[in-house]
Amino acid sequence: MKKALLLLGCPEAPSQTPMAIYSAYKLTNQGYDVTVASTPSAVKLLEVSDPQEFYVKNKVDIESCLENLEEGSFDLLVGFVHKDAAVSYFVTFYSILNTTSMALVFERDQKLLESYVESIKESTDATIVSARAYHNPTPLRVKFDRALKELEGEN
Amino acid sequence: MKKALLLLGCPEAPSQTPMAIYSAYKLTNQGYDVTVASTPSAVKLLEVSDPQEFYVKNKVDIESCLENLEEGSFDLLVGFVHKDAAVSYFVTFYSILNTTSMALVFERDQKLLESYVESIKESTDATIVSARAYHNPTPLRVKFDRALKELEGEN
Repeated sequence: MKKALLLLGCPEAPSQTPMAIYSAYKLTNQGYDVTVASTPSAVKLLEVSDPQEFYVKNKVDIESCLENLEEGSFDLLVGFVHKDAAVSYFVTFYSILNTTSMALVFERDQKLLESYVESIKESTDATIVSARAYHNPTPLRVKFDRALKELEGEN
Repeated sequence: MKKALLLLGCPEAPSQTPMAIYSAYKLTNQGYDVTVASTPSAVKLLEVSDPQEFYVKNKVDIESCLENLEEGSFDLLVGFVHKDAAVSYFVTFYSILNTTSMALVFERDQKLLESYVESIKESTDATIVSARAYHNPTPLRVKFDRALKELEGEN
């Protein structure tokens, strides 16, 4: 079974947890075994958001995940990026995994959004899905669906 | 079957959507038929957060819900409050339904939190669950669980 790693950033943006559930759901439907790696605060939101673990079965701490990570651990990396720290995490995971990757970049501020996109472009060949988004998840969801379809077309 | 109405406010706080799912889940487990009333933007987050409608089956627009509301429409009102507008909505729904009610008040800022709690105390006899919370849902979740237990003890 193909394995996907979903990387969550700081939980400040209200659309991150809902979009994390949605992405896990879509990837599971496409045949991936999905693991979500996140900080302790983001995982609390995820637990409350899916109390029966209906959508997200595997959750790991981002730091311990990183410690045990090696090339081949996952077939697909999907990372949520809306802080500088999340850019660094994504690039680090990308470099180690060396596999198909997608960055979901979202920010309310257009300049910050562009700077995150630039940073990821400079350091990776990942597919970049970006949207000015904060509490409306639709722009990011629509673009994510499209990117996932293209990804499936390639495989 | 007992009917509960869950009232969502503006979706800016990252813990609202996860806590809405959690509350719907807990109330359903306690035998309530749960309806969530929210603004169009809050409902988008809810849809993305529960794409298979596993936790939330009934969703209605807050304005059309209000138009058709009358005493006896629901047995329990639970409202999320973290804005002035949400205080007004809660008090309005409370006055019409005239039934057992609970306000979940959360805010990062202690003074704002107290002012919302005061406003609700002045206008209703609702149970008030309040916590300084923004992206950590745990304080609110723990207090909600306790209040729900007490409520069940009474019924």
